[in-house]
Amino acid sequence: MPKIDLAAIEQTNRTGYPAEFAEAVAGRWVRKLGPATGLSEFGVSHVVLNPGAASSQRHWHEEEDEFVVMLSGEAVLVDDSGRTPMRAGDMASFPRGDGNGHHLVNESGEDCVFLAVGRVPQGRAHYPDIDLIWSGEAYHRKDGSRF
Amino acid sequence: MPKIDLAAIEQTNRTGYPAEFAEAVAGRWVRKLGPATGLSEFGVSHVVLNPGAASSQRHWHEEEDEFVVMLSGEAVLVDDSGRTPMRAGDMASFPRGDGNGHHLVNESGEDCVFLAVGRVPQGRAHYPDIDLIWSGEAYHRKDGSRF
Repeated sequence: MPKIDLAAIEQTNRTGYPAEFAEAVAGRWVRKLGPATGLSEFGVSHVVLNPGAASSQRHWHEEEDEFVVMLSGEAVLVDDSGRTPMRAGDMASFPRGDGNGHHLVNESGEDCVFLAVGRVPQGRAHYPDIDLIWSGEAYHRKDGSRF
Repeated sequence: MPKIDLAAIEQTNRTGYPAEFAEAVAGRWVRKLGPATGLSEFGVSHVVLNPGAASSQRHWHEEEDEFVVMLSGEAVLVDDSGRTPMRAGDMASFPRGDGNGHHLVNESGEDCVFLAVGRVPQGRAHYPDIDLIWSGEAYHRKDGSRF
């Protein structure tokens, strides 16, 4: 049956961030729907943000388009253009290489839920606010040193 | 600003279906969000189904994963496993090559809204209920004749 049974899919708050940048996403609970439902051409993450949690550190990708749609609750989209409230049905696109660091932050007192769509992660990712780069293979500092 | 302004994106009920199969989707109103917002790696269609309208003829793709999420209203997912109500927040995956013809039908009295995600269309599509095949380049009948 094609309808997705969310309860049957593992939910995790794991992160690959170095410890010093991990606290911001401790309240981010992700279900990876693509692999769990047989999709291989793109990924769909179902994400619950607890109050105070961020979707990621603010970042942009050199080689990966991203798209998000809010399903419930409220988050603030923070990017170079400012702060934008995002509520159920609101959507945003982040074209690869746009240089516009972005993330969603749950500043409300309730959980919010969104979907994030992207290709298999590839290429470098930039984090304008913190001393972090994703090389495409590993995290390192902007001077090239490893964590 | 990454947040999508739906009102600024063209909405159309155009279809490439042969005339005899087009009536079912006359009340399907699509906005293609990917090209309009700078995404090229995958497509996202914002779809409003008027009462009585279907998302497509029932079909499956040989070479194209599909994913849908309901944003508002109610539709019935019709596939080989039967009929499944789909409401806001409900999601479904259609892995390429699964052979399971599917579509959404709005049998309610109100509009419903969903998003459909897929790669750039490619490969053959099969329509189990009607005399139609998409070759990857054109529609034709199952005996190979053209419309």
